[in-house]
Amino acid sequence: MPRIPKERLGRYLGLKREFKEEHYINLNPIQRGGVLTSEARKALLEFGDGYSTCDWCPPKAARLDAIERPPIAQFMRDLAEFLNMDVARVVTRCREAKFITFTTLGEPGDYVVVDSLAHYSTYIAAELARLKIKEVPHGGPPEFKLDLDAYADKIEEVKRETGKLPAVVLLTHVDYLYGNLNDAAAVGKICKKYGVPFLLNAAYTAGVMPIDGKKLGADIIVSSGHKSWAASAPTGILALKEELVDKMLARSKVVGDWSERKFGLKEYALLGCTVMGAPLISLMASFPHVVERVERWPQELEQARYLVEQLERIEGTRQLGVKPKQHTLIHMESDGFYKASQTHKRRGFFLYDELKRRGIVGLQPGLTKHFKLNPYGLSREKVEQVTKSFLEIANEQKLKVD
Amino acid sequence: MPRIPKERLGRYLGLKREFKEEHYINLNPIQRGGVLTSEARKALLEFGDGYSTCDWCPPKAARLDAIERPPIAQFMRDLAEFLNMDVARVVTRCREAKFITFTTLGEPGDYVVVDSLAHYSTYIAAELARLKIKEVPHGGPPEFKLDLDAYADKIEEVKRETGKLPAVVLLTHVDYLYGNLNDAAAVGKICKKYGVPFLLNAAYTAGVMPIDGKKLGADIIVSSGHKSWAASAPTGILALKEELVDKMLARSKVVGDWSERKFGLKEYALLGCTVMGAPLISLMASFPHVVERVERWPQELEQARYLVEQLERIEGTRQLGVKPKQHTLIHMESDGFYKASQTHKRRGFFLYDELKRRGIVGLQPGLTKHFKLNPYGLSREKVEQVTKSFLEIANEQKLKVD
Repeated sequence: MPRIPKERLGRYLGLKREFKEEHYINLNPIQRGGVLTSEARKALLEFGDGYSTCDWCPPKAARLDAIERPPIAQFMRDLAEFLNMDVARVVTRCREAKFITFTTLGEPGDYVVVDSLAHYSTYIAAELARLKIKEVPHGGPPEFKLDLDAYADKIEEVKRETGKLPAVVLLTHVDYLYGNLNDAAAVGKICKKYGVPFLLNAAYTAGVMPIDGKKLGADIIVSSGHKSWAASAPTGILALKEELVDKMLARSKVVGDWSERKFGLKEYALLGCTVMGAPLISLMASFPHVVERVERWPQELEQARYLVEQLERIEGTRQLGVKPKQHTLIHMESDGFYKASQTHKRRGFFLYDELKRRGIVGLQPGLTKHFKLNPYGLSREKVEQVTKSFLEIANEQKLKVD
Repeated sequence: MPRIPKERLGRYLGLKREFKEEHYINLNPIQRGGVLTSEARKALLEFGDGYSTCDWCPPKAARLDAIERPPIAQFMRDLAEFLNMDVARVVTRCREAKFITFTTLGEPGDYVVVDSLAHYSTYIAAELARLKIKEVPHGGPPEFKLDLDAYADKIEEVKRETGKLPAVVLLTHVDYLYGNLNDAAAVGKICKKYGVPFLLNAAYTAGVMPIDGKKLGADIIVSSGHKSWAASAPTGILALKEELVDKMLARSKVVGDWSERKFGLKEYALLGCTVMGAPLISLMASFPHVVERVERWPQELEQARYLVEQLERIEGTRQLGVKPKQHTLIHMESDGFYKASQTHKRRGFFLYDELKRRGIVGLQPGLTKHFKLNPYGLSREKVEQVTKSFLEIANEQKLKVD
């Protein structure tokens, strides 16, 4: 057997993260909602050891969601209630929750109708489930607004082409590109009319803003614990209506042909137990904070709008996506910073460099013309520091600031 | 939107684990190999925040396994080398690695040949991939030895019945029931002869004992970070030979019908990125320790055999599975403790109670006739405490001790 040389192993000792919350203002759009609470940090260490959640696995109902110590079973019920859905499970990722939905509600070759701003993981979850994609268009720049009425057209189109309704309809509640909030209830109504299950991808919404699944007409809500619930990765949330439990959380039916073994307790599409450790516990430990923080969403929005307003003072700079912002994920277009980059010795990297010098990270290095940022959860003071830094950099680059 | 009452949320504050390593000797057979190193504990906190691994995601190769800071890309290479395989990925669970194998190498309706002591997750991973199961028998008590030659018969049987070879052959290297170590190389040879991909489930072996994939003739090795690599859950390992990369790590081919979006970088069966946070980092941080500890496997085995020898001194008590032990997972049968339980006021729970009173946990509560335990990684002193405790309890129950 080969041996890995000791000197090569040295690189795994003392692994450090540079961009910790204590040291930087991190505007990375996928990271703001996943910053741990101090409760979650403590819980991580308590349940760090592999399978540490399984100490009290009930022998007769051996399944993660049945464990009462720590209160995982109760958490599943509270999670469902919080989203106003009937049943919830924690799975490994939001994308896994989508895959589970697609593979249990669809047969290979079936269609799923999705919005054209959906995350790549929506597309490949469908691909893995062997489903086909039909996209609902958006209106392009500057708003990139989805044409939600087109959901009906696309459902009709699938029916016409295949003689069959789509297996699932998916809407990305807030998209990762422009942070547009969509009227989920409108799509919910269309789905109800056609009798097609409606999957709402709430990766950017549930956990940071209030979500009422019943009011939105969602049959399934999926979300991401590490994106929006102050939890460690990987954690996904799958919440559904009672009517779908038999299909989506179907128990295993496989029988060993020689041994005659059966595993009738296990939810086969989840592959049985899912997140049997620290990330689940971090999600639970942050839950009281999350329940409370969604009530402060209006203040978060107000802060995001303030940031946009300040950034738009910079020459040639505007927010893309629907205005005013209905979500804290912001996509800016800046002809000004782009112009400056053309003559700067660091080219497009100057913006990243200048921000980092000021203790601000999270913008994609190299970008100036289009960049995304998210001030969610930052104090007013830190947001001021961000706006001040951007305006300073603009001034230094001789851009006009209104 | 419903609000969860504050008093109900209180239960998620201050989540504590009772059975921490500092407080108990935990013999739980699934937990011994997953106890974190102190390096892993520190790394957990560094990378606790959701998506904290993604600070330096390379924009042009945006994928978890391409990240160089922290050294995830290098880790994938070292992991493959350590197992003497060509390519490795970290996925969310060993069972997910099995599912990925089944779904990428098989078509719905195909067969997979498995050993009849395989874990339930093997069966349901096949079920989710819509494959059928053909089992290789074992010889029953007391050894429960698998008939490895029967792999050839079962492959022939599948061929006869379906006109097609099985999609995959799976062997559980060490089974969860009796801890029997199987001669993987023998099955590797059979698979090679038939040209069927050989998947070795090394959940109980890789990470605790030396594994040489090439020597064993494995085409795919899967393992579990939280079971055997001193990592937090959920973490699975998928290692494969170069020849299978095109199929198993195939890039996404889906195209948006309206947007024409493509995601050709993403490995679709992994759903793109997998463990983008703390558990992966814990696996990396423990890796230097794991590389070193597998060399101490002979001492671990010796200790397990000593424990068996001591337990077998108790009246009516014997080890099941192949003797002498080739793995530290031990299955004991005790007519003695069972007899004692019949008249004990706590019935079958007395054994659990008496051990816990002595600071020892991890046996399934209620069991006396059959119980499993695993001394992996315990100091000699602690193993002595375990044997002493068992013998003491036997004495108290008036069982003969040789």
